[in-house]
Amino acid sequence: MPASVQPGTGQLPINASFSVAVTGYHDASLDSEVRRFQAQLARQSGIPFRPKTGSSPTLTIHADHGRQAIQKLGEDESYELTVTDSGAKLAAPTTLGAMRGLQTFLQLVQITPTGFAAPAVAIKDQPRFPWRGTLIDVSRHFIPIDVLKRNIDGMAAVKINVLHWHLSDDQGFRVESKIFPKLTGMGSDGMFYTQDEIRDFIAYAHDRGIRVMPEFDVPGHSRSWFLGYPELSSGSGPYTLEGGGPGPYIDPIMDPTQESTYKFLEKFVAEMARLFPDAYFHIGGDEVDGKQWDANPKSQAFIHAHGMKNNQDLQAYFNQRLQKIVAKNHKTMVGWDEILHPDLPKTIVVQSWRGQESLAAAAKQGYSGLLSNGYYLDLMRPAARHYAVDPMANAAATLAPEEKGRILGGESCQWAEWVTPENIDSHIWPRNAAIAERLWSPQSVTDVASMYARLNAVSLHLEFLGLTHRSAREHMLHRMAGDADITELRNLADVVEPVKDYNRWSDAQGPIDFHAPLTRMLDAVYPESDVARHFSDLVQTFVQSGYKDQAAETQIRTWLAAWRDNDARLHPLLSTTFLLQEDVPLSQNLSALGVAGLQALDYLDKSQPAPDSWKTQQIALITQAKLRQADMLLMVVAPVQQLVEASASQHN
Amino acid sequence: MPASVQPGTGQLPINASFSVAVTGYHDASLDSEVRRFQAQLARQSGIPFRPKTGSSPTLTIHADHGRQAIQKLGEDESYELTVTDSGAKLAAPTTLGAMRGLQTFLQLVQITPTGFAAPAVAIKDQPRFPWRGTLIDVSRHFIPIDVLKRNIDGMAAVKINVLHWHLSDDQGFRVESKIFPKLTGMGSDGMFYTQDEIRDFIAYAHDRGIRVMPEFDVPGHSRSWFLGYPELSSGSGPYTLEGGGPGPYIDPIMDPTQESTYKFLEKFVAEMARLFPDAYFHIGGDEVDGKQWDANPKSQAFIHAHGMKNNQDLQAYFNQRLQKIVAKNHKTMVGWDEILHPDLPKTIVVQSWRGQESLAAAAKQGYSGLLSNGYYLDLMRPAARHYAVDPMANAAATLAPEEKGRILGGESCQWAEWVTPENIDSHIWPRNAAIAERLWSPQSVTDVASMYARLNAVSLHLEFLGLTHRSAREHMLHRMAGDADITELRNLADVVEPVKDYNRWSDAQGPIDFHAPLTRMLDAVYPESDVARHFSDLVQTFVQSGYKDQAAETQIRTWLAAWRDNDARLHPLLSTTFLLQEDVPLSQNLSALGVAGLQALDYLDKSQPAPDSWKTQQIALITQAKLRQADMLLMVVAPVQQLVEASASQHN
Repeated sequence: MPASVQPGTGQLPINASFSVAVTGYHDASLDSEVRRFQAQLARQSGIPFRPKTGSSPTLTIHADHGRQAIQKLGEDESYELTVTDSGAKLAAPTTLGAMRGLQTFLQLVQITPTGFAAPAVAIKDQPRFPWRGTLIDVSRHFIPIDVLKRNIDGMAAVKINVLHWHLSDDQGFRVESKIFPKLTGMGSDGMFYTQDEIRDFIAYAHDRGIRVMPEFDVPGHSRSWFLGYPELSSGSGPYTLEGGGPGPYIDPIMDPTQESTYKFLEKFVAEMARLFPDAYFHIGGDEVDGKQWDANPKSQAFIHAHGMKNNQDLQAYFNQRLQKIVAKNHKTMVGWDEILHPDLPKTIVVQSWRGQESLAAAAKQGYSGLLSNGYYLDLMRPAARHYAVDPMANAAATLAPEEKGRILGGESCQWAEWVTPENIDSHIWPRNAAIAERLWSPQSVTDVASMYARLNAVSLHLEFLGLTHRSAREHMLHRMAGDADITELRNLADVVEPVKDYNRWSDAQGPIDFHAPLTRMLDAVYPESDVARHFSDLVQTFVQSGYKDQAAETQIRTWLAAWRDNDARLHPLLSTTFLLQEDVPLSQNLSALGVAGLQALDYLDKSQPAPDSWKTQQIALITQAKLRQADMLLMVVAPVQQLVEASASQHN
Repeated sequence: MPASVQPGTGQLPINASFSVAVTGYHDASLDSEVRRFQAQLARQSGIPFRPKTGSSPTLTIHADHGRQAIQKLGEDESYELTVTDSGAKLAAPTTLGAMRGLQTFLQLVQITPTGFAAPAVAIKDQPRFPWRGTLIDVSRHFIPIDVLKRNIDGMAAVKINVLHWHLSDDQGFRVESKIFPKLTGMGSDGMFYTQDEIRDFIAYAHDRGIRVMPEFDVPGHSRSWFLGYPELSSGSGPYTLEGGGPGPYIDPIMDPTQESTYKFLEKFVAEMARLFPDAYFHIGGDEVDGKQWDANPKSQAFIHAHGMKNNQDLQAYFNQRLQKIVAKNHKTMVGWDEILHPDLPKTIVVQSWRGQESLAAAAKQGYSGLLSNGYYLDLMRPAARHYAVDPMANAAATLAPEEKGRILGGESCQWAEWVTPENIDSHIWPRNAAIAERLWSPQSVTDVASMYARLNAVSLHLEFLGLTHRSAREHMLHRMAGDADITELRNLADVVEPVKDYNRWSDAQGPIDFHAPLTRMLDAVYPESDVARHFSDLVQTFVQSGYKDQAAETQIRTWLAAWRDNDARLHPLLSTTFLLQEDVPLSQNLSALGVAGLQALDYLDKSQPAPDSWKTQQIALITQAKLRQADMLLMVVAPVQQLVEASASQHN
């Protein structure tokens, strides 16, 4: 949603005669963006646009200036877009702004009774925050470059301007180092990016107006470093990759007490600083498990000798040393919450995974900050929940203007415990677009219903762009079903979601096998069920009408009847393939809910209170249906419960 | 279906420990095939296989010899594949045969109650015909290399071994010529393949065991040559591309009476013969419209001067001259039916688009031949119909063994009047797999029901391979529907097919605009409706049971009720987007058929003859529903008619 939108009258037809002219400054970056714009417009509309010559282009693009060779934080991304029934004009101070405006134009194009068209409108737009990022973890599950590239396309479509590339962790080191080849040679399963691939990828992202910030997580989350270079660690090896073999699974940490660690990091950071042109360099710094330091007499002696109080002080010492190395390479150091320590200079940027409180605290102390708490896509929460999280809300709302200015924006995070190249798109999209809007659009834009309407539209456009967040589910359901028809399986998949937060795995289960297939129903379904949301909305409408809205009731009954009848048709399939057997109770519960809901409606229609015995039975069913099954949740339990309780509580 | 299959006992589990060893001859081609095999197995199963070391590989591959650097017609493609519950062995005289066997192994892998597995089996297999091709026309609509590559993958999966690349026609010349740059410079819309792209593509196909035979269609179907080189034509220019501008649309032909034509072709064929390594070179030769020759006094004088009787003789003269040029470049000339003429040497190959009669006639005269009649995918006929066409049937069945030996095989044809890169896969697949089986498997393999079962399985595997024959429909329906849910639109799309044969366009409509969007429902739906076939089968089962099969009736009623109710939900959408408005009557007819079918079942259930007046009404509806609507056909009319007539004809 742009900062300012003035609707006009009429619409601009988009047909085969559509043409684009660039009248102002242009460069290779804008030229290729225009080509991509036309290609995407062709995909969306199915119109095979051909190069036009002539005097009256449909869309005129005028940029005053070029953009930075290395994209800068805060570079001007503003633009103005005017669409009338006879043409469109896009004007921007920079080609970067023009690129943002072209994405807005693509969002305006819709199918109408008379053809494709963009509504007449006058838009003045600029981002609310200069830093709008998405973190993608490629350590826990390796994500190939082509998959990242299509996600870059998606990010550009929703005006995200930073890819935070989480490149190393306990489960794998993913970047080729020419100086320290054992980082990938021993610290990965052979899957990593070569430096050539990285350069190509960074250029790809730059071409789309996206900065690429690397993260190398130290001194914790760094087991993968120690397979090749155990001397960096504070404990004694040998080490194996987490998930790659037998434990032990305590967290190894770098040894901050020895100069050799810093010598290594000097060389490593210098190499990586050359490879990654972005001005920011993320050093992680989160979740440092102090056990190895506790166990290592050298560390404890070092703490005493330097007058430190604890492990936190030791990490701060490490960070100070590292910050100097990063700064020497002309980069600004970024790290997670835990790096915040008064000993560090105010130039660093703190990324808050812990919460808005710590973000505000950092800003108060003079540090710049980014919010990620509330934007963790891997927690499988609905878009509305992320959308409600504002970097300037709660603790930040009370900051002084100068302090507020230190909040640069935020980043969504896609941690990769449970994703593969096949299903990562659906874990990121379309929900990421809601977070992108939170970070771009005015704080006042908060209506959830209209957000979902836009999200649905953008989700379709993203599939046309090449993302697979919808289509991958279809593939995966077909795999589970073998040759069988998947209509009923899709019906079930439509109303379930994976369990939330960190509930998929418990520590009691031991380490995750990161090379196991992720091919269960759980892995295929969308993190957010549109059908359940629509059904719940329908039930609210019906309830609020005093159970009188006939149209709503008819639709509710259609759903309930479909669910009631689904299990009988689905059951034979569920029992014949090993990937679906665990879903039998889920399907049975859905059918039982369908029956319960229909009975509740019958009681409501007759204005006849449901008997207590019936209600007791239904509540028992509902209680059981709320439990996780095969690591999934049935998302239509609550609205059915609402109907059941309403039917029982009505009075004659 | 392999030539010989002996089922064994048990099954071979396919799990993370699966490994492959190559024990015999191997080369780059087999090595890359093994890598592709593993990648496809990973996509099908979702198991991220990792390189294994160890002494007992799951699958052992042994090839005695390598394959030809330039794949030859008749090269040994045989293999033997034995699967037991403890392992699998693939043996083949050549690496080419091993490649075919690996594709068979992939087809064996299925999901079971205990995991993925291949059934124990002993297979001895070799192709029935050495030439199993698919023609793809890239002139009428340009098809980019990446789309062709995924189709090559599909062809390899079903053991097709020739891509017949129809590279020039009236609508565009698609191959870069360095000697005659105006062929593409003026004779295309800018969309063509560079020679580098072609070399890369041929290597890609070769790697997958597929020959690439180019076709340059002369002396007719050659308008695109004349934009840049009008002097080649028998008429007077200037010319424009068909579909690329105003007419006239009579068919221009090359001038066979002037030596300069042959000088041009000498240079051109030499250049193309170097570019395309295959031993066969297709010169088209079909549908030569003699109007320009009739109108050109020079041509008529030439016919008289050389003692020819007619234009056919003149074309034969042209072909003789061209054949010598082709032969000088060490290629065998291939052409369509019309090149058959006693003046041509027996070394040429005749491809029959006209019918089995002409194929047999050619074989009798000593010519080798290929069957394409009956295999035209663009005619939108069901797989069963293509499957029933056998190169050795009808006229060919009476040939002597030696004559039969001249029938090399056949080719399916994908002419490109109505396809784009977006929907071409669904026009080719999965039906092409049925033709592939006809050409590979024994003549005795003819059961249609089991063919469809295999076709369904292979269709899924092809989507995992990257083809979009199923998923593209989803994209296209979403485009038509804008942001709306497409459940009901999918229901409608499931039971319609495009009109058949050449009925989409009539000459009265004038030339086709080859740059118009192909985005109507007609363009999105599958050429063959699985739902209609299943429904029809159900009705046959019900009828044959004497209307007593309750299970069948229940299923029939479920379908009919769904169709009855579909229009009410779909109608609002159909009327609001311009791409769907034309489908309103189709949707209404489907609902009416649902009502009629349910009423017929009610009469049948009550053993009560339906009244004449009711039957008359229903037949009127059915007659109207059989008519094309929006260039589509409702495919469930006939079985509903069957129910209606049965209900009216029963006796008390």
